[in-house]
Amino acid sequence: MRWEEKLASRTARMEASAVREILKVATSPGVISLAGGLPAAESFPLEIMEELMGAVLGRYGARALQYDASEGFFPLREALVPLLAGRGIETSAEEILVVSGSQSALDGMGKILISPGDAIAVEAPTYLGALQAFNPYEPRYVQIETDDDGLIPEALDAALAQTSVKFVYLVPTFQNPTGRTIPLGRRKQIAEIIQRHDVLLFEDDPYSDLRYAGEPVPPIKTLAPENVVYSGTLSKTFAPGLRLGFCVAPEALMHWLVIARQGVDLHTNTLGQALASEYLSGGHLARQLPKILDLYRPRREAILEALANSFPEDFRWTRPEGGMFIWAEGPAGLDTEKLYRRALERNVAFVPGKFFYVDHRDGLATMRMNFTAADPATIAHAIELLGQAIAEELHG
Amino acid sequence: MRWEEKLASRTARMEASAVREILKVATSPGVISLAGGLPAAESFPLEIMEELMGAVLGRYGARALQYDASEGFFPLREALVPLLAGRGIETSAEEILVVSGSQSALDGMGKILISPGDAIAVEAPTYLGALQAFNPYEPRYVQIETDDDGLIPEALDAALAQTSVKFVYLVPTFQNPTGRTIPLGRRKQIAEIIQRHDVLLFEDDPYSDLRYAGEPVPPIKTLAPENVVYSGTLSKTFAPGLRLGFCVAPEALMHWLVIARQGVDLHTNTLGQALASEYLSGGHLARQLPKILDLYRPRREAILEALANSFPEDFRWTRPEGGMFIWAEGPAGLDTEKLYRRALERNVAFVPGKFFYVDHRDGLATMRMNFTAADPATIAHAIELLGQAIAEELHG
Repeated sequence: MRWEEKLASRTARMEASAVREILKVATSPGVISLAGGLPAAESFPLEIMEELMGAVLGRYGARALQYDASEGFFPLREALVPLLAGRGIETSAEEILVVSGSQSALDGMGKILISPGDAIAVEAPTYLGALQAFNPYEPRYVQIETDDDGLIPEALDAALAQTSVKFVYLVPTFQNPTGRTIPLGRRKQIAEIIQRHDVLLFEDDPYSDLRYAGEPVPPIKTLAPENVVYSGTLSKTFAPGLRLGFCVAPEALMHWLVIARQGVDLHTNTLGQALASEYLSGGHLARQLPKILDLYRPRREAILEALANSFPEDFRWTRPEGGMFIWAEGPAGLDTEKLYRRALERNVAFVPGKFFYVDHRDGLATMRMNFTAADPATIAHAIELLGQAIAEELHG
Repeated sequence: MRWEEKLASRTARMEASAVREILKVATSPGVISLAGGLPAAESFPLEIMEELMGAVLGRYGARALQYDASEGFFPLREALVPLLAGRGIETSAEEILVVSGSQSALDGMGKILISPGDAIAVEAPTYLGALQAFNPYEPRYVQIETDDDGLIPEALDAALAQTSVKFVYLVPTFQNPTGRTIPLGRRKQIAEIIQRHDVLLFEDDPYSDLRYAGEPVPPIKTLAPENVVYSGTLSKTFAPGLRLGFCVAPEALMHWLVIARQGVDLHTNTLGQALASEYLSGGHLARQLPKILDLYRPRREAILEALANSFPEDFRWTRPEGGMFIWAEGPAGLDTEKLYRRALERNVAFVPGKFFYVDHRDGLATMRMNFTAADPATIAHAIELLGQAIAEELHG
């Protein structure tokens, strides 16, 4: 039997992404990869894991290994309240839903909200994982224009006036893939626009804790609480392998997100949640985060300095105050997918930018580079090699 | 804004089940619950968890906390090969997909295979969690008749001749909710039928390790390997809170199951997978399983003895050699939902059987009782109280 012939109509929208293949190649031995989005292994609190495990078993015993509520392990939901308050989001444990990585909140949003053909507004470029989560629910996308300050509010306003969208999807802080942060002024405009159009915003905020310079900007959730589903993660500040995310949604949606979760995996793994609740309430995050920032800060400085030294004058790139990514754009006519192959011959990998656009004919001259996975010297070396590949690609 | 008005069309199929409410009530203080499907907390290998954690950190270090492949943590996939071989399923690590509890394999199957309106064949009664996983993908169900030996092959054959189904969903061993096991003869018939009709079978096998008496029966996967997606779990023999399931599927489907998983949660939590790989490869399961069986065996004996003593003669019930559930049927005219409320006044809970039928007008006189969560004396007392409630309900 050719089981492929039995696939659902939606499955055609789920083709393996070229990026998946790029990321596979990028992990080949000898390749310096600026392609992935991995936190550095050195950022994990390995040395306290056994202590956390002991504390969890002592405090919760068998409960840490048992089935638990779809809404999340209650002590973790309680421990997330002050974390959210630190970002300006006043909420209660009951209003927080724990999810299996923020990816699972994206899947839940798609599942409960998107009927085939519904429109979703996204930044251009946008986070690829969000498209992968939404695609099976067969939306069409409205790409909203961006500039160095991220989403352009006037473009959003015009798009919402023209098209009825199910929701707007944004990564407002240290965006993946660009590293851009939407400034407060624009956030206020966006809050006003979504309220005026009575539109829901999914605010995906995985990176805001990773700030190496400058001042925090409040989440849009704080500016339009009833119109925003806010999502965060512990993947960057604890450990991604635990698959722990969380979200705060208007009550009417929370009900359905919980039911959707039940069908997908019953609930997020209890042991990971119990470890995270100890990590947060025991003050470990407060001690670990400065170490993570100290680890990444010189990596950001290294990549920015190397870019200034090695990239040609007709390149532009972002200078984010945090997060994990730099976004660069070469001169018109440059094809970064070809550049990617040339860079790989030099054992350096990045992600060609076009994959972050809904329409892959956009962003042909753009590229995303991660600066958290490698040490400063390696990053500097990789950028130097990339500069050589660029020179060769442009001037042959 | 009334966000409910923005819900996707599929969301109407996802209403909170009445069972969810029943299970909530059943966990109230003072209530003896035979309603849930929880493994006993005493079955968890709590005393070795710190040792496992130490072994995992020593062997894998940061890798146990990092992002990992959507297919699963490779050492766990390797450790599952001999476990599957012990059930007669010859496979390789590369052919095994780790999922976030077998619930997530059900979601994946629904996502990649079900277009709205597609038919799925299920036993009557069937596992409720499967319906919850499939419903968002808007199938219609074909109920296949069962008897004391589970699915009736002739009924399946007739249904497949009449209706083209996307797949058949079965729990052939110690079924939830009935506890029934399909005997080898019928399995051979089912294997022949699905091959002849060129139909896919999803064989959900969470309970086969929990055998307290009798001889194992081979999975249908061993009889029709190319037509079966086989799914198992570590929830009953390690810890459900880790959310670890696995499946073996024909290659063409595995590809799509992996892509679907990527969109839903990227991958199953790495730490849990690493702990499980140590649990399996370190011989801990082989030591723990006999303890679990010794724990549950007297509970099964207690419920069967209590039923014989306390339930009236016009009741019939299953006598499973394993698993977690007994299924009982009272005389025609009995409404077990009314009985449920009467039982609750006596502080005993079970699940009325109609909720396990696609059509809730079926199985009005049936009920599911769990026998693994409480100790033998408590079970015996609960069944005695239930017997009193039944007598009152039937004879007023």
